[in-house]
Amino acid sequence: MRTSQYLLSTLKETPSDAEVISHQLMLRAGMIRKLASGLYNWLPTGLRVLKKVENIVREEMNRAGAVEVSMPVVQPAELWQESGRWEQYGPELCRLTDRHDRPFVLGPTHEEVITHLVRYEVSSYKQLPLNLYQIQTKFRDEVRPRFGVMRGREFLMKDAYSFHIDKASLVETYGKMHAAYCAAFSRMGLDFRPVQADTGSIGGTGSHEFQVLAESGEDLIAFSTASDYAANIEMAEAMAPAGARPAASAALTTVDTPNVHTIDEVCAFFNVDAKQVAKTLLVLGDADEQGQQAVVALVLRGDHELNDVKAEKLAGIAQPLTFASDEQIKAAAGCDAGSIGPVGFAGRIVVDRSAAHLADFICGANVTGKHLTGANWDRDIAAYEIADIRNVVEGDPSPCGQGTLLLKRGIEVGHIFQLGTKYSEAMKATVLNEAGKATIMEMGCYGIGVSRVVAAAIEQNYDDAGIIWPDAIAPFEVAIIPMNMHKSHRVAELAERFYSELKAAGVDVLFDDRKERPGVMFADMELIGIPHAIIIGERGIDNGVVEYKQRRSGEKSEVAIDEIVRHVQSQLQR
Amino acid sequence: MRTSQYLLSTLKETPSDAEVISHQLMLRAGMIRKLASGLYNWLPTGLRVLKKVENIVREEMNRAGAVEVSMPVVQPAELWQESGRWEQYGPELCRLTDRHDRPFVLGPTHEEVITHLVRYEVSSYKQLPLNLYQIQTKFRDEVRPRFGVMRGREFLMKDAYSFHIDKASLVETYGKMHAAYCAAFSRMGLDFRPVQADTGSIGGTGSHEFQVLAESGEDLIAFSTASDYAANIEMAEAMAPAGARPAASAALTTVDTPNVHTIDEVCAFFNVDAKQVAKTLLVLGDADEQGQQAVVALVLRGDHELNDVKAEKLAGIAQPLTFASDEQIKAAAGCDAGSIGPVGFAGRIVVDRSAAHLADFICGANVTGKHLTGANWDRDIAAYEIADIRNVVEGDPSPCGQGTLLLKRGIEVGHIFQLGTKYSEAMKATVLNEAGKATIMEMGCYGIGVSRVVAAAIEQNYDDAGIIWPDAIAPFEVAIIPMNMHKSHRVAELAERFYSELKAAGVDVLFDDRKERPGVMFADMELIGIPHAIIIGERGIDNGVVEYKQRRSGEKSEVAIDEIVRHVQSQLQR
Repeated sequence: MRTSQYLLSTLKETPSDAEVISHQLMLRAGMIRKLASGLYNWLPTGLRVLKKVENIVREEMNRAGAVEVSMPVVQPAELWQESGRWEQYGPELCRLTDRHDRPFVLGPTHEEVITHLVRYEVSSYKQLPLNLYQIQTKFRDEVRPRFGVMRGREFLMKDAYSFHIDKASLVETYGKMHAAYCAAFSRMGLDFRPVQADTGSIGGTGSHEFQVLAESGEDLIAFSTASDYAANIEMAEAMAPAGARPAASAALTTVDTPNVHTIDEVCAFFNVDAKQVAKTLLVLGDADEQGQQAVVALVLRGDHELNDVKAEKLAGIAQPLTFASDEQIKAAAGCDAGSIGPVGFAGRIVVDRSAAHLADFICGANVTGKHLTGANWDRDIAAYEIADIRNVVEGDPSPCGQGTLLLKRGIEVGHIFQLGTKYSEAMKATVLNEAGKATIMEMGCYGIGVSRVVAAAIEQNYDDAGIIWPDAIAPFEVAIIPMNMHKSHRVAELAERFYSELKAAGVDVLFDDRKERPGVMFADMELIGIPHAIIIGERGIDNGVVEYKQRRSGEKSEVAIDEIVRHVQSQLQR
Repeated sequence: MRTSQYLLSTLKETPSDAEVISHQLMLRAGMIRKLASGLYNWLPTGLRVLKKVENIVREEMNRAGAVEVSMPVVQPAELWQESGRWEQYGPELCRLTDRHDRPFVLGPTHEEVITHLVRYEVSSYKQLPLNLYQIQTKFRDEVRPRFGVMRGREFLMKDAYSFHIDKASLVETYGKMHAAYCAAFSRMGLDFRPVQADTGSIGGTGSHEFQVLAESGEDLIAFSTASDYAANIEMAEAMAPAGARPAASAALTTVDTPNVHTIDEVCAFFNVDAKQVAKTLLVLGDADEQGQQAVVALVLRGDHELNDVKAEKLAGIAQPLTFASDEQIKAAAGCDAGSIGPVGFAGRIVVDRSAAHLADFICGANVTGKHLTGANWDRDIAAYEIADIRNVVEGDPSPCGQGTLLLKRGIEVGHIFQLGTKYSEAMKATVLNEAGKATIMEMGCYGIGVSRVVAAAIEQNYDDAGIIWPDAIAPFEVAIIPMNMHKSHRVAELAERFYSELKAAGVDVLFDDRKERPGVMFADMELIGIPHAIIIGERGIDNGVVEYKQRRSGEKSEVAIDEIVRHVQSQLQR
């Protein structure tokens, strides 16, 4: 490609409305342009990257035995009514009517459509397992679209759906897809982790997220320092501290603590570490037959945070997790929020594993303005349950049994689920099994946010000058930068020669043939992140050399004119 | 690909709701499945064809210097209000609102979005010409979707838009795109014609349609028997008959013609050919300042048909073309519709070139139940205009001056327009010209109905057994059909060997490894139209041969086992 026939559209200034680096650089590098909130035009440079990501995903899906199909963006509402998601899905589901006033949706995912398709196309266990995927435009009406294509409304997604006669077959395909995802993201040159994940509202059992590590990530991931273990913070199991709980040694004592409410205030008042304090939170339980909701006490160590997802999954706890109001607290504990404690609390008590390991601890006295010191489980609180209800913190023992946990931020670019029979049951998707009996199919679903991958890759690969693409997803692999070629016949001739030789060798090359100053050309090629550059100048030609520059390392070297094409090819990491 | 891991989904029965052959065969061959009216899932076999068509189009666009971009499906209404199409476009434009009640449309085309994009990205004539294209999902809410993907509501389209400093540059790019379209459709193995076309509601000047010839086509195309001339029937010019008009010889005579209304009845009554009769139609003219519409008489030869598009383009005629009501006829001509004629008609008269060549003709007398014989122009009708207002018929002289016209049916698969400044003017898309003056850009637009091409190709390539794909767009190039492979180790071994050898050679091969009777396998492979087949059987192996069969010719030949892979490769027409 010649820049003179291309739409480069680079910007010198950082657009003021772009918060994250990838959004800023995608605008500056002329990759995308905003059409409306959450809607973007992909300019040529952006689309080239998007297509490369798409092709890697397609190749790995095919290699994993998935078969490509294509389903419409516009879907009839009836299927969503059948699955139950017509009611469950909030305003993120864009609903519309056609000219005959029939209701439709713009598909945010395609579970309904694929289940509908497969229930008519597949009738026997002999046709299973079947794994179908598409790479297709999706729409989700985000309440606050942001970060450019990272959280847009219209986006490109690879979504795959697998169908199975039994759970064992699902687990096998799930494993193949896990491997295919690892292969795809590795080929793209990304630093990523597959992490155990919550299945969220989509339901089902086993699930992994694929997280690209980046400081700007919205998700927090826990890793083992000594093994492959990685889990989303929502899922990472917090283990009980090692060893047995120390024995009680102090007497239970009530202390006046006027104006002491928070854990920080308690620590300051008693001059102790938060690790010696038990923090008690009151949440609502499930409604009983009369519609009454009991109040449940959740007890954590003062330095720990409640994990809502874990707490919500406890039997008997209202979903979504709902904290008791001041009135409900007063009624249940007899005091204000700052003085609640497990000792003498009349209701159900759930204690985090670490809090349950405390002895001689400090807690609220269930009397406003009073705390207890020397509190002890069993001795002072007879009935309580122990559960994992907190977020892990760095240094926690890893639940895999090896090493301790580290926390890092990540950007979710893929998600795989063992859906089970959630959709196939609602939509009566059955096949005949070996015995000739109609059997509900097991399903898996597997997504990659193709357009989001582009942004995530930038969050991980940039410097002050711009983007630094991994070779495999760069818009171009090589830039040819001829200095003052419009004045130098020799420079122009060499540039043309390298351009045709590289093109003939199948290298993806951008020939900057604009009448621009060398500084402008360098800046543009660095900004759009082309990994390899050949710089041609009069002075070099006098010495029989041109310059090769690597974008990532910034290293420059002089290479003989007749060697440069081979040299560049040897540097490519495809 | 192995059929055992594929979703073949062929059907034995022809679905009752499919009218045209391509729709029937796409359903039977497992290429598509209906999701809702005009909305189709593309199954693997269909998608493979669609992708091959898409790739050929992409390659030819790139070769022609067009640069790929991607614009959203969902477009903000403001742009459509700016161009004026928000009001002009009928219910085919699907309108929706987002969660904040902001109005959007599902894009049926992208003139507004691209013009909006380019007006901000391009500022100087130096950046022109620029030709941007996308291959993208479109939505058009057809009142009666039909013929499967031929006239669906959601479809895949390649749309390109070019921008120019002047008309000459537009004409040059238009020519390149014309050539690229010819190259693309030729590579797909289609029998097509570029034909002169009306620009319709999109406006602008020069335009060609690309028509795939097929009897089921909705469009009628006129060709010269002696040149490359081809035009849509709406556009094909009807020439005046050769020579001078014969002189008047008969006297004008009024004849009682009770119950004679139609041309057929007139011919029977007078025992003459329709070529001797003038047919008069009354239509409405433009409204005057008082909102009154005069009635205009259009006169054709009895054997000719009015061409609405041509008539509508006449100055002073109401758009859309509107026929006078019985009351308006009575008021203007003083008689019923069956007796109108030009002699003595008080209003404006427009005569088709062929009708204007008549002498001593028969026409209505403007008195109910009476006709005139021996009517003659000039002698009996003083004031009239001559224009081309009829459809051409087979045998007409070609307007190119060479040969006569033939008529054939076609399916429109592409359309190119010289748009001019319709959008760039409405949306103020200017660049600075060489003199530094803001100049409205000239635009071209260029569409290919990618999904429609798939159906059109079938309309042209099928037989009783199913589809006959041209190699370049076949879902698979070669089928391997092993007979009773599950009982014969030798057959299975050879099939596996050919499969890996052909795959290694980059051939697109489907290995039918199902436990099916040979008859079922032959029928399926013929139905889905794979152009080349290798049939492996025990008996052949005894003689050291396998069978090669060509789908189109039906010819079979025995080929030595060690030769077959090379033989098949030599037959491929890529």
